[in-house]
Amino acid sequence: MTQSREVRLKAYPPAMPDPSHFEMATVDVPAPGAGEVQVRNHWMSVDPYMRGRMRDVKSYAAPFALGAPMGGGAVGEVIASNDPSLKVGDMVQSMNGWREVFNAPAMSLQKVDAARIPAQAYLGVAGMPGMTAYVGLIHMASLKPGDVVFVSAAAGAVGQIVCQIAKIKSHKVIGSAGGAEKCAWLKSIGVDEVIDYRAEENLTKALMKAAPEGIDVYFENVGGKHMDAALAAANPFARFALCGMIAGYNDPQGAAVNNLMMAVGKSIRLQGFIVSNHFAQYGADFQRDMVGWIASGQIKWQETVEDGIDNAVTAFLKLFSGENNGKMLVKLS
Amino acid sequence: MTQSREVRLKAYPPAMPDPSHFEMATVDVPAPGAGEVQVRNHWMSVDPYMRGRMRDVKSYAAPFALGAPMGGGAVGEVIASNDPSLKVGDMVQSMNGWREVFNAPAMSLQKVDAARIPAQAYLGVAGMPGMTAYVGLIHMASLKPGDVVFVSAAAGAVGQIVCQIAKIKSHKVIGSAGGAEKCAWLKSIGVDEVIDYRAEENLTKALMKAAPEGIDVYFENVGGKHMDAALAAANPFARFALCGMIAGYNDPQGAAVNNLMMAVGKSIRLQGFIVSNHFAQYGADFQRDMVGWIASGQIKWQETVEDGIDNAVTAFLKLFSGENNGKMLVKLS
Repeated sequence: MTQSREVRLKAYPPAMPDPSHFEMATVDVPAPGAGEVQVRNHWMSVDPYMRGRMRDVKSYAAPFALGAPMGGGAVGEVIASNDPSLKVGDMVQSMNGWREVFNAPAMSLQKVDAARIPAQAYLGVAGMPGMTAYVGLIHMASLKPGDVVFVSAAAGAVGQIVCQIAKIKSHKVIGSAGGAEKCAWLKSIGVDEVIDYRAEENLTKALMKAAPEGIDVYFENVGGKHMDAALAAANPFARFALCGMIAGYNDPQGAAVNNLMMAVGKSIRLQGFIVSNHFAQYGADFQRDMVGWIASGQIKWQETVEDGIDNAVTAFLKLFSGENNGKMLVKLS
Repeated sequence: MTQSREVRLKAYPPAMPDPSHFEMATVDVPAPGAGEVQVRNHWMSVDPYMRGRMRDVKSYAAPFALGAPMGGGAVGEVIASNDPSLKVGDMVQSMNGWREVFNAPAMSLQKVDAARIPAQAYLGVAGMPGMTAYVGLIHMASLKPGDVVFVSAAAGAVGQIVCQIAKIKSHKVIGSAGGAEKCAWLKSIGVDEVIDYRAEENLTKALMKAAPEGIDVYFENVGGKHMDAALAAANPFARFALCGMIAGYNDPQGAAVNNLMMAVGKSIRLQGFIVSNHFAQYGADFQRDMVGWIASGQIKWQETVEDGIDNAVTAFLKLFSGENNGKMLVKLS
């Protein structure tokens, strides 16, 4: 019998999560039943949205269950199969989360082509973060020719793709990120104006200086002062895609907004969205466009990798201190 | 030569306006020139949006000029004509504001039918406030069958019409207003659940009690705590029409919002709008529908009337203390 370690949620964190809210367990994984396969994860994803499911309130997704392994995107290899649709050696993507080995119905897994692009890219640029960037920028913000685009957390897993899609489509792009290293990376991928928000006393002034013509689209990952700056710098009829507000995930006051009134006078549209509601409508477009952009070298990406399931919690917590460059991943084998 | 008194803006109020920010002047009005008519105003309008133009910053509309008569909607009678398109006795609507008598090009004025509905209704239910309600509810909030509708400042000039259009279309409507008198009026026009926000310690709880099924549409006139309550009570894919945020007009902190993060998880759309951008597209629909509703007795309205141009400033200031029931008007003759 195979053994697997898994990270379980032990308690809902009232504010900033810390290692005490999680626990490691070792479980036995039997041979896969009829229609099932056994998967050994190679890569698992930690993402800011997971924080939102670590609370016991009704939201767009059910809260993570206490005592159960954390859910989340993962890519692994089939190591035993009891279903004709998948064979040993196939690489598959799941939402089965923070564990080393698991059994699952073959039909619940998505086979991925790891020869074409690296397996872990299916957790990033070619996966949920990439599709979030694509749907948010193009559809939620209704990107139009000539729009000036502002992106917060621009060096994050989603932000870095938003910036590059906007550049592929010939837009002026302003990105904000924390720290010189991230800002340098953004410059290197063609972002026109980069704001190191940690170095700026007045984010609104910095944004207005970077975009004296005003912004037409804002891709929101941060909230709070970033939202206030975007509202202040927005042109009439600007469109904001609300993807996340990480400033408020552990401190509700962090996402407090003072300038929302400006949305009236400027006829601004703010559209909150969850990418999973848009797979059916835009999934095929995304696959076609993104595979093409990766193949032609038009999309680059950064990853930050932590090694081993022992470091999964560490990797997750680093999202909130901004220690990741691009997609944060945990390598499991 | 006719004399006319006019109210001029003397200084931009830094916070709450008071009478010292205005001044009364008396001017001579010569006979109308070629193509012009002379109008004696019967009614003038004071509206919350005017506060937004009393500041020296770029906005959707130019700031009011200091030393010039205040602009704004007015209805008056042609008392001299030098243009064949209008004759003495015709009633006309203008945006020429807070004055007793003025000359204007005939083509800049809109003739109104004061036999059909009262002249002052063209400043309210059949005018800009009515059209704001219509466009905001039906188009900006994309009203759909079965939507539960929440309206703040529900007893105001715009809110009272929003509530009634929603009831005509068979929606459940929750209205918030300040004080027992306004709440009783809302009940009398068929609003299903009325919240006296001054009597509630926790607006979110009150709203969730009034709409345990959640709200699908929010018509925003107030901002701040009202917006937070609406975000908390909203169902997934709710649509908010942002018409105004009077809580922040004189105190920017009054419209501060803490719950905007909820717009992400619930995929909420917030759409700011200015009615003047929608006259061309929806003006004819509005006229047709509203005249029909008034004729069939389906739309009622309240007015609060102050007498004489001496009381124009008082009337305007009462908007911010909530002393108006429905449309606030100044009767000039």
